[in-house]
Amino acid sequence: MTELIPGFELPRVVIENVTPILDGGRYPVKRTVGSTVEVRANIFKDGHDLIGARVIHRVLGDSAWQAVPLIHHYDADFWSGSFRADRLGRVEYAVQAWPDHYGTFRSELEKRLNAGQDVRPELVEGAALVARYALQFSGDAAGFLEKCRRELNDPDLGLDERLKTALSPELKSLIAGPMAPNEIAQCPVLELIVDRLEATFSAWYELFPRSQSPVPGKHGTFADTLRRLPEIAAQGFDVIYLPPIHPIGEVHRKGRNNARVAEPGDHGSPWAIGSKFGGHDAVHPELGTLADFEALVKGAQDFGLEIAIDFALQCAPDHPWVREHPDWFFVRTDGSIRYAENPPKKYEDIYPLNFWCEDRKRMWEACRNLLLFWIERGVKIFRVDNPHTKPLAFWEWALRDIHEKHPEVLFLSESFTRPNRLKSLGKLGFNQSYTYFTWKNSAWELKEYMNELIQPEMQSYFRPNFFANTPDILHEYLQSGGRPAFRIRLVLAATLSPCYGIYSGFELCENVPVRHGSEEYLDSEKYEIKARDLNAYGNIKQDVARINRIRRENPALHELGNIEFLHSEYEGVLAYRKYAPNNEILVVVNLDPFHAHETMIHVPIKRLGIADGEPYEVADLLSGARYTWRGARNFVRLDPNDRVAHVFRVSRRVD
Amino acid sequence: MTELIPGFELPRVVIENVTPILDGGRYPVKRTVGSTVEVRANIFKDGHDLIGARVIHRVLGDSAWQAVPLIHHYDADFWSGSFRADRLGRVEYAVQAWPDHYGTFRSELEKRLNAGQDVRPELVEGAALVARYALQFSGDAAGFLEKCRRELNDPDLGLDERLKTALSPELKSLIAGPMAPNEIAQCPVLELIVDRLEATFSAWYELFPRSQSPVPGKHGTFADTLRRLPEIAAQGFDVIYLPPIHPIGEVHRKGRNNARVAEPGDHGSPWAIGSKFGGHDAVHPELGTLADFEALVKGAQDFGLEIAIDFALQCAPDHPWVREHPDWFFVRTDGSIRYAENPPKKYEDIYPLNFWCEDRKRMWEACRNLLLFWIERGVKIFRVDNPHTKPLAFWEWALRDIHEKHPEVLFLSESFTRPNRLKSLGKLGFNQSYTYFTWKNSAWELKEYMNELIQPEMQSYFRPNFFANTPDILHEYLQSGGRPAFRIRLVLAATLSPCYGIYSGFELCENVPVRHGSEEYLDSEKYEIKARDLNAYGNIKQDVARINRIRRENPALHELGNIEFLHSEYEGVLAYRKYAPNNEILVVVNLDPFHAHETMIHVPIKRLGIADGEPYEVADLLSGARYTWRGARNFVRLDPNDRVAHVFRVSRRVD
Repeated sequence: MTELIPGFELPRVVIENVTPILDGGRYPVKRTVGSTVEVRANIFKDGHDLIGARVIHRVLGDSAWQAVPLIHHYDADFWSGSFRADRLGRVEYAVQAWPDHYGTFRSELEKRLNAGQDVRPELVEGAALVARYALQFSGDAAGFLEKCRRELNDPDLGLDERLKTALSPELKSLIAGPMAPNEIAQCPVLELIVDRLEATFSAWYELFPRSQSPVPGKHGTFADTLRRLPEIAAQGFDVIYLPPIHPIGEVHRKGRNNARVAEPGDHGSPWAIGSKFGGHDAVHPELGTLADFEALVKGAQDFGLEIAIDFALQCAPDHPWVREHPDWFFVRTDGSIRYAENPPKKYEDIYPLNFWCEDRKRMWEACRNLLLFWIERGVKIFRVDNPHTKPLAFWEWALRDIHEKHPEVLFLSESFTRPNRLKSLGKLGFNQSYTYFTWKNSAWELKEYMNELIQPEMQSYFRPNFFANTPDILHEYLQSGGRPAFRIRLVLAATLSPCYGIYSGFELCENVPVRHGSEEYLDSEKYEIKARDLNAYGNIKQDVARINRIRRENPALHELGNIEFLHSEYEGVLAYRKYAPNNEILVVVNLDPFHAHETMIHVPIKRLGIADGEPYEVADLLSGARYTWRGARNFVRLDPNDRVAHVFRVSRRVD
Repeated sequence: MTELIPGFELPRVVIENVTPILDGGRYPVKRTVGSTVEVRANIFKDGHDLIGARVIHRVLGDSAWQAVPLIHHYDADFWSGSFRADRLGRVEYAVQAWPDHYGTFRSELEKRLNAGQDVRPELVEGAALVARYALQFSGDAAGFLEKCRRELNDPDLGLDERLKTALSPELKSLIAGPMAPNEIAQCPVLELIVDRLEATFSAWYELFPRSQSPVPGKHGTFADTLRRLPEIAAQGFDVIYLPPIHPIGEVHRKGRNNARVAEPGDHGSPWAIGSKFGGHDAVHPELGTLADFEALVKGAQDFGLEIAIDFALQCAPDHPWVREHPDWFFVRTDGSIRYAENPPKKYEDIYPLNFWCEDRKRMWEACRNLLLFWIERGVKIFRVDNPHTKPLAFWEWALRDIHEKHPEVLFLSESFTRPNRLKSLGKLGFNQSYTYFTWKNSAWELKEYMNELIQPEMQSYFRPNFFANTPDILHEYLQSGGRPAFRIRLVLAATLSPCYGIYSGFELCENVPVRHGSEEYLDSEKYEIKARDLNAYGNIKQDVARINRIRRENPALHELGNIEFLHSEYEGVLAYRKYAPNNEILVVVNLDPFHAHETMIHVPIKRLGIADGEPYEVADLLSGARYTWRGARNFVRLDPNDRVAHVFRVSRRVD
């Protein structure tokens, strides 16, 4: 004989299909501080009684639950209510529902009155009901309920007076909730992460501090980088991301252009971390001291900038950990330590960590402590190198641990792996992610990819950061398309995604690959110091500054999902609308860096609140030009040698 | 400091998005015996190692898990494998995955060989790997692995021989699985219910035994019903459903046409269950004895028929339970028992049970025991009356309990409530459900409703039974459309849904409502005995017999989801395709019972494997007529006074 299942004792109300939810509650969904969390559920029960429902929520670690009533949308048959995510950190929420006995009593009483039935027996039942509700009250409330109960029960009182008591707003407001705690049904407690605004809206600039010396050929320093801040701030960036700043391995150091053996004086790759000067908690001596780094972090704050550093969990052969904890690495049968390999490729300058070694608890903690070390020195953003080559369980543990103490810290996942794994990193805690944007250059690719990214489920955990180039990715489109291609990709990155970035050299349209067919740069900065004249002829710094200012000034560009692609009669001209309250932006981009194109684009004027035939103004925020348009279908012409794009702000009133 | 989360110790492989699954595993999905269960999952891990995966499954209560390997579909990046549901009952299944160390070793060895690298150090690593795998083996297998290990490690052996060992199929087949149990990741165990075929394919006929006497006005009996079986079997039905067969209450008995007070000699409603003659475990004395009932059940089997009975958990005021367990009902403050009400309507002949009374454990068990009582008497199908007015938790418990002991028992939910609650009954265990079909009469309504029902998630738990009429529902379409309307609805019910039914009188096109605007029958059989001449002029028994034979002979009509609506140039002529291997059916129905219509319908000949211009034959299984068609667009004409529909079987070879 089957044991009575738990449901036998459970409340009668069923709560289903609660949203937002990610993978059945396995992972938290993400929101930004200040946003509204709308919770929905299907709620029903047996029988004809009415239902009451609410969403409860609290910041994790705070014991006080707050409640918001849920409203029943009868035709679509779902319930909803919302609360504001007004504090950083993890928020718990759950839907509760219960049989609304008083509401049912009231509704049936009214039906009987309308049908002219004798309701005196019902008033007696109502008195019994009020008495049951009263059990959970004391003091004045209990007294009031006892008075109501007596009145409902009192045959000597006039019927009108008894009815007035039965239907009084005071009684209703007092007993609208559950009659007893065991009548409350509750869905499993769900979680959401509330991040600061920069998680969803920020412009990034990547630079190598060692290339920042004003003296060509000289090793740059943190101090040199500090001096560059005013110019970078003036271009409108929010985050400066530095590749690893730690001592660079000397054993098996790579030479220029990834030569297997370094020449004397070669500086090596910053991703080969660790030397006699220290490991992940030290700075490369040629960059300066830890104090210099802290000065840079503080200096950045003065310009409204943040310093993000790289978190690359791998070691050069001369990293202190190799000596102190050889068991944290892959030890071969002959006792030697295995370097990184992707057969037939060999990376002798890198020892991967064995995250599943016997001593993994200490090792994971040591890695986590590195984050705490840099957080103490003012770093609040980490760009994580190749996280998919480390255990997903490690990230879930480490990121949650850091976020509990420091909910303001952001992690950007640098993972260009297959979709399931790439997305998983977003689910388990990364606040932002690199994307496939670099490889999406045609109109259909861009539309298809954007439409995937803006799916509500994907948006609930995955925040793209559209880097237009990186030290590892110089796309063929930029190699062949030259300056117009850089301007095109800048506008696309900065307006398609509220988070975007460029790696220095982009503003100079650097586009020479190490060889034909490669996405690697010639003379890559990964292996040497670059001396750049950032004011060289043909630079696109003015474009960068302008697009960053346009982004700041237009709320429509602060969100990801508020995009609608528009019909363009020539496919190679991409048009899309971004919208926010009182802020309508139309972006039109000629994706062809070689030829001018003209076409008609179709504006969904109805959704913009513009009538047929009504004139409206589109002001190009890039060029300053203004046009008066009328109707849906409008002409555009874009010449890559002049204007590669329009970023129109639409206004209905024509001056 | 955060405790290390459990993931820290868990296997490295992530298993996500396992299907089939219903509400995150909260409810079992349903399948029919003999069907193939295809299990899919996204599976990935950190790093570059290969993955092994399988689905394990077993019948609940059976300790032996069986395993089927999962195959990786690389481009779409999911894994899949399948097993056959070959036994009735609950099946547990789960996906397991693990790092495939040997596969990774093998793959990298081959890459190194192709690159011409020295692989001898790798062979030594391979020997260590084989030794770790060997730990879980004994006997011959252990001996073989030890031999492999030695050979891999043996510098005196030729390289070719060592490689042959490393890559041997024998070694591969032995260690393709997990290296150690703690490396196996597993998703939560999911459940599915395997039902017998009748759950998904059956034709139902509803009759009142009391109306089966050949002598008009005389109370019919089980014995009379037994004598009707040959005729019903000849019409091709599978299930005969009987409204409640229990003693009918005498207190507050309803009269004819639902009169509040019965006249002497009135028989009352069978749904007012219980009298001095007994309750739910007794039979109405005028129908015969329990032995007569059992004879009917056995007799039905001889004709390939099954008897389904009604399970209506409510009591007449003179039901024995009212006396024995007044606390199982709703007791008013004055000690009286509350009759059913839906203010302002009153149902004084019915006392609802209070499923949440204090003594509910005993009461729920008593209700469950009623099912066991009738199962012991040969009943294997229950039509459950208004299940949504009883707790969902009760059904989930009771149905699971019955199904564990009697997996062949089927429950049909008679619930015409709002969608969320109606669907929920399917999720928690009902094998079939009444639907909104009766109210879907236009082409767009039918298409929209079918497209909802065939959604994969909905199909995984909800099995529609399209009753064309019931004692409660005589739709206006039948009232006004007369005989052609009955023929149209018969073809629709029987070909749109593999489970369908009619309530007796349908074959005589009975269509007089109690009053205009009501769906109730005049002189409803619910309150009186009906005497019918089933061979009366205008009966459609031949249509019924023919459509039931067509259903049996054509596998395309045995499934729900294998439907495709076809373009018809006149919307009022509905056309759809049903398909199964070697069985292509095209159904064309004129939905207008008043006028003939002709139109062109578009056959997706490509999907039927028919070339442009190739002639093909459509044989009307209803009329016997055959036509040769060519191309997609073909002419049909349907006159409600002659043919209301075509049910074509398509064949490519024209005789």
